[in-house]
Amino acid sequence: MNENSVIEHIRKKARLKSEVAMGIGDDCAIYRPRKGEELLFTTDFVIEGRHFRRDTHTARQVGYKALARSLSDIAAMGGSPEFCLVGLAAPADSQWIDGFYDGLFALAAKTGTSLAGGDLSRSETIICDVMVCGSAATGTALRRGGAKPGDALYVTGALGGSAHGLATGKGLAWKKHLRPEPRLAIGQLLRLKYGATACIDLSDGLSTDLARLCKASGLCADLGDTLPFFRGATIEEALHGGEDYELLFTVPGKRRIPVEIAGVPITRIGSVEKGPAGRIFGEKREFEIIAAGFDHFETK
Amino acid sequence: MNENSVIEHIRKKARLKSEVAMGIGDDCAIYRPRKGEELLFTTDFVIEGRHFRRDTHTARQVGYKALARSLSDIAAMGGSPEFCLVGLAAPADSQWIDGFYDGLFALAAKTGTSLAGGDLSRSETIICDVMVCGSAATGTALRRGGAKPGDALYVTGALGGSAHGLATGKGLAWKKHLRPEPRLAIGQLLRLKYGATACIDLSDGLSTDLARLCKASGLCADLGDTLPFFRGATIEEALHGGEDYELLFTVPGKRRIPVEIAGVPITRIGSVEKGPAGRIFGEKREFEIIAAGFDHFETK
Repeated sequence: MNENSVIEHIRKKARLKSEVAMGIGDDCAIYRPRKGEELLFTTDFVIEGRHFRRDTHTARQVGYKALARSLSDIAAMGGSPEFCLVGLAAPADSQWIDGFYDGLFALAAKTGTSLAGGDLSRSETIICDVMVCGSAATGTALRRGGAKPGDALYVTGALGGSAHGLATGKGLAWKKHLRPEPRLAIGQLLRLKYGATACIDLSDGLSTDLARLCKASGLCADLGDTLPFFRGATIEEALHGGEDYELLFTVPGKRRIPVEIAGVPITRIGSVEKGPAGRIFGEKREFEIIAAGFDHFETK
Repeated sequence: MNENSVIEHIRKKARLKSEVAMGIGDDCAIYRPRKGEELLFTTDFVIEGRHFRRDTHTARQVGYKALARSLSDIAAMGGSPEFCLVGLAAPADSQWIDGFYDGLFALAAKTGTSLAGGDLSRSETIICDVMVCGSAATGTALRRGGAKPGDALYVTGALGGSAHGLATGKGLAWKKHLRPEPRLAIGQLLRLKYGATACIDLSDGLSTDLARLCKASGLCADLGDTLPFFRGATIEEALHGGEDYELLFTVPGKRRIPVEIAGVPITRIGSVEKGPAGRIFGEKREFEIIAAGFDHFETK
């Protein structure tokens, strides 16, 4: 096993779209932007012992999830994925490395994401970092900060499934934890068709990510009494559990949004209003929900 | 200390060029390409225990070097740096994290690289991954594979300094190891002014990187008897030592290249010729140099 043979193996499997003028095999990948597009960039770590364990997650699952995390950020901006760069530091275990790329390639093929480059290094602890570039017509990408007072607040799918799966290790919730679906088609439709004013993906939990959307928009949120719980999930898991990778978005209050988009249920969970920026209130402001999602550096 | 406060601190220090329409603070960074440019992308790990040690490298030095490694790839394509995304997994040590970003920002400011986003995670072992995007006029980026038979082979600066520094831990060689200078101005001039046909940066050692350039171009190399050794470096260090981050390039045989570009000595070290692709010969093909630079996964 050597670095060149591993890279050559990956390079042969990579399918490049025509905008990628150079993929793996030079000092840099080359991308030629289309006219009138802005480019979206995100990068996310997946680290052994923090985001997965080798005894409970297969190499394929790790590769799939590493790409899914970053694609979810592209979905949150309403973008179309273009290409990714994959940094992988792992032990010299060619079976694990092959499995990782197989899982990643499966999702890359499904979503039209070209693997254009990356870095390989050796490390006893497995670390990967996936950068994805997406595109949208210039000026149209959905941001967190565009919500207006009175806008309705919606969420895709169900909440707390991933946290519940992590706690129980079984059933549909565990599947949801292992194989999150980046909501790419929904994000694009929210941008192109449904006039969404703001959007964020739920990576760190509803309470944390909703607070971020509200803070960026200078508004507060009034939640209604309906939250779409994932089957079996607790209130704690639904409000604060991370890694659901659903989309949370706002649309003008009178806009009609279907109950399902691209096969995924859409639920109105409240509205955003003038008020203390970044704060989240329960029905009629009788109580407040404090952001308690995942924080990597919390030192309470 | 919490994640939001760390990110807010970094966000305030980041200086964004106008093409970066959104920096830190949303799901993705947004970049708006200029007309007629192609974009160059590279990503490189810097991992504790592999690329640096906490007791011999300060946080500032690690931050500087993490960006320098990726900028060197942009230099090798003749590109101008545009922005970077920085993934950092580190212990919750705010002094170390601040120092890391100070070092990175120092080089970012000097080279016009905007910090546009990234990811932060907690990890006992420090891992960073810096993605840099650069630009060049469409179709002009320097590649490894463009050398023609009879082209002259040149190298910038001196060879083996970084490996010698790592071995001795002192003097100018140690400085070279700690603070490599990405050869951005030289790369751009090679592309725009000197008609370079191929270029690569020396990250894994002359023997390994020259073999890559030759293989990509379908040629072999004939080295002359002059190699610019870094003061004190051994033959081994000059031929096979990694992390010099000098540029190795080819130009048409009759082209005149100055002895110095942008203040850095330029040395002709041989030529590339028809012959077994990727192989490197000593003067008059009396002996062969076998690539023996750094390989992360070598399992001899």
